[in-house]
Amino acid sequence: MSTDLNTISKLADLQSQRSKWRHNNQIIALVPTMGALHEGHLSLVKLARTAASKVIVSVFVNPKQFTQGEDLDQYPRDLAADLDKLKTIGADLVYAPDVEQIYPKGFSTHISVTGISEGLCGVSRPHFFDGVATVVTKLLLHCAPDIAVFGEKDYQQLLVIRRLVADLDLPVDVLGGPIVRESDGLALSSRNVYLSKTDRQSAPLLWKALIETRAQLLQGVPMQQAASQTSEQLIKAGFILDYFELCDARTLAPIHQYEGKPARLLIASMLGRTRLIDNISVIG
Amino acid sequence: MSTDLNTISKLADLQSQRSKWRHNNQIIALVPTMGALHEGHLSLVKLARTAASKVIVSVFVNPKQFTQGEDLDQYPRDLAADLDKLKTIGADLVYAPDVEQIYPKGFSTHISVTGISEGLCGVSRPHFFDGVATVVTKLLLHCAPDIAVFGEKDYQQLLVIRRLVADLDLPVDVLGGPIVRESDGLALSSRNVYLSKTDRQSAPLLWKALIETRAQLLQGVPMQQAASQTSEQLIKAGFILDYFELCDARTLAPIHQYEGKPARLLIASMLGRTRLIDNISVIG
Repeated sequence: MSTDLNTISKLADLQSQRSKWRHNNQIIALVPTMGALHEGHLSLVKLARTAASKVIVSVFVNPKQFTQGEDLDQYPRDLAADLDKLKTIGADLVYAPDVEQIYPKGFSTHISVTGISEGLCGVSRPHFFDGVATVVTKLLLHCAPDIAVFGEKDYQQLLVIRRLVADLDLPVDVLGGPIVRESDGLALSSRNVYLSKTDRQSAPLLWKALIETRAQLLQGVPMQQAASQTSEQLIKAGFILDYFELCDARTLAPIHQYEGKPARLLIASMLGRTRLIDNISVIG
Repeated sequence: MSTDLNTISKLADLQSQRSKWRHNNQIIALVPTMGALHEGHLSLVKLARTAASKVIVSVFVNPKQFTQGEDLDQYPRDLAADLDKLKTIGADLVYAPDVEQIYPKGFSTHISVTGISEGLCGVSRPHFFDGVATVVTKLLLHCAPDIAVFGEKDYQQLLVIRRLVADLDLPVDVLGGPIVRESDGLALSSRNVYLSKTDRQSAPLLWKALIETRAQLLQGVPMQQAASQTSEQLIKAGFILDYFELCDARTLAPIHQYEGKPARLLIASMLGRTRLIDNISVIG
């Protein structure tokens, strides 16, 4: 299947298209991305497709969610390749604004979500979630979708956005799409292309650590004990762990021992120069 | 004239009314207030009336724009009296949400506008404009007006809101309404009721200081010199000045000498236990 795929960079053009769709009672879904699309993103578009009659995919590498020293300049960008992928799976519109469209001269509004954004990735990337909250608010206001789809790979981000949407009463349903993995278990990520050949071979150990730790948690082993065994294997393999935590699945409050309440096991680590994150659901 | 005046406290009811008006192509204006309405507020409603076919007045004493130790608990509240006043001037709807409607349990989203909010009132009231930005964003999203009217009495607030609206691309025209004064020059304010009888008699000196200083500025006297003379009179009369500044009318950047570019002269002072602010345009 190959469809026409309209690409829009100006807000006025987007609003015009959106009004037409609204007028025709279309259900609109938005899948916000930073481009460099892989099967993980495409699965979110497919999920959006099942819930909406029109799917907008936004492609915007958001400078505000990169901290100084991070990979903003190196972040992979290939809009033409992204469009080719999206054409085959039935997206209806790509919104690819330039930086000036999102952050015009003099821009000085900042949106932050305290609490849920403060642990885990919020510790090592202090302004990351403020940048996410600000751009997602803008994209939701620009696209005014009925549904917005985010990947569970960025689990904390998904919860930050759910909080933001509830707090601002934005009339949008937020859907989380399951993580898509390589056959060896590595979670798909646009940053995987940074991995050296050796690191790429070690990378699935992160997923294995999650699986093994979960198995122990479900047997009643406390988190600290379960994590220390698997962490050791990771460190031996060259991982520099940022965090490895068991959290309440809804609030991200730390949990010391799994006791049946929906939980999430989340991990972040540097491997070489690449930061990898992953997580799994823990439900007994 | 006395009209029916619908009072709504729930967002769902507001949205339902708004949809009907939208459907009938009404132009909707919002006048956000904290209640305790006086002629200043009513002038904003009248201004809204000239620009829109339906006028919503919101009444919400926003806890987030009060700093600890400020007058949140004492702030004058009298919704019945407010409604009586609004009935006579043709408001169509009062939106009076309770605190839970605006800040439900777990609310943790914060909106701030840096730069323009940092000088003047932003110095002595550090979280004031964050509170304003957060509640105004919510009220604008709730009411989705075509026009929003704010008083020039809170001149810095007006500029913060203009910046916020531009930055978030909110589809609303922000109108500033001129300051309304007592016959002796005192700018109307809900806080004027706090003034003792003696302080009430001194209070118009603030306005007189603005007028006199402006006259000197227009003759080429530098701000520091012009302000020092008038400040002295105020201090003698018991005012404790917070700031007295000449600023660019658009950016609020400080100006040392008036040179023909649109400027604003702004003053804030404690008088007894009451904080008074005032400002005037300086245009030669």
